[in-house]
Amino acid sequence: MIRLYHFPLSPFCRKVRLTLKEKRLEAELIEERYWEQSPDFLRRNPAGKVPVLRMDTRVMSESQAICEYLDETNAAPALMPRDPEGRYEVRRLCAWFDDKFHEEVTSKLLYERVNKKIMGLGYPDSKNVKAGATRIKYHLDYMGWLLDQRRWLAGDAMTLADFTAAAHLSCLDYISDVDWNRNATVKDWYAKIKSRPSFRTLLQDQIPGFPPPAHYADLDF
Amino acid sequence: MIRLYHFPLSPFCRKVRLTLKEKRLEAELIEERYWEQSPDFLRRNPAGKVPVLRMDTRVMSESQAICEYLDETNAAPALMPRDPEGRYEVRRLCAWFDDKFHEEVTSKLLYERVNKKIMGLGYPDSKNVKAGATRIKYHLDYMGWLLDQRRWLAGDAMTLADFTAAAHLSCLDYISDVDWNRNATVKDWYAKIKSRPSFRTLLQDQIPGFPPPAHYADLDF
Repeated sequence: MIRLYHFPLSPFCRKVRLTLKEKRLEAELIEERYWEQSPDFLRRNPAGKVPVLRMDTRVMSESQAICEYLDETNAAPALMPRDPEGRYEVRRLCAWFDDKFHEEVTSKLLYERVNKKIMGLGYPDSKNVKAGATRIKYHLDYMGWLLDQRRWLAGDAMTLADFTAAAHLSCLDYISDVDWNRNATVKDWYAKIKSRPSFRTLLQDQIPGFPPPAHYADLDF
Repeated sequence: MIRLYHFPLSPFCRKVRLTLKEKRLEAELIEERYWEQSPDFLRRNPAGKVPVLRMDTRVMSESQAICEYLDETNAAPALMPRDPEGRYEVRRLCAWFDDKFHEEVTSKLLYERVNKKIMGLGYPDSKNVKAGATRIKYHLDYMGWLLDQRRWLAGDAMTLADFTAAAHLSCLDYISDVDWNRNATVKDWYAKIKSRPSFRTLLQDQIPGFPPPAHYADLDF
């Protein structure tokens, strides 16, 4: 039995959802209002964060640690390269998106526009939103620069780095904060990822009060 | 030729320094005032952060990715377990310290008291300092709880999780922000780590304007 405690527009949860689906592991999804820090939830993860993955009696947290575990214990498809140099580059880029992109973009746009309202923390801070809208351009350019040299973000094979980046971008796309016209190479890359079967349930997510734009679930966006 | 661009009181740099020393890799240390974001530095790492490790022509960033790379390419001593469950637990705890502990404690105490002054960003915010001083107690208790069940933080062998935690705690110990009397088990664990040869250069660090307390370099603290 696999159960994932998650929040639909959390990029870290989406990264685990994509990895589970790629590995053809069926998981029951349970939405967790993690910011309410219920005692039951804190018992499952003292860090008080989603995702939390329960596999039989094992309870796991921290998305990167979970995804690498799922990759190591389920061979196909491999989401990490076999050589240390390739693995380094995947981990560097996962950290790039989960740390730098998260801080400069995801937290400034998604958390301001959506999470704040859901959590009852008031209105978006326009200074943050503006900063996020500026920074995402640099990140899309950086991705374009990488993808001009490689088929996928970390090399010539699809890896966890692609799913990590796509997890963040898909959340921002839900609130129309990604300008897909900025870089054709990045758009092509996202179209490839978006059309994978593992992406389907993400495209069906609906957040009450925040209807997604028409292009969000459209594979020909 | 190995060269590490670092900042002495950065826990992420210390984690890489400890890993290099454990693996008996000699590295030239170059202090980098990373917050000044010099063009040369940004060319080495567009993320604009330390540590940056140059190994011959390879330039690497992101401390966890670097440390796992060094562990995979240098066999002894192994800093990651061989089983996926063990590796998961190490990665979970590395993320715990580099993410949660960093946000709740390191940034609230070290960055307020030291980095702000060095970077010319003014005085410590006493609200943050107070919050950090409260939160570190919970983290020391959590470490004590783990160490009551295991010889080292992630299991019965010393791993990267121990060096990650020690990297953060050693920076806080430099400014006397760790109450070693709170938990005897945690103190014993730190004494074991601190007496390793890999720790020596960390204990010799001197930050101008911030002399370390007498107990900082004392193995019998």
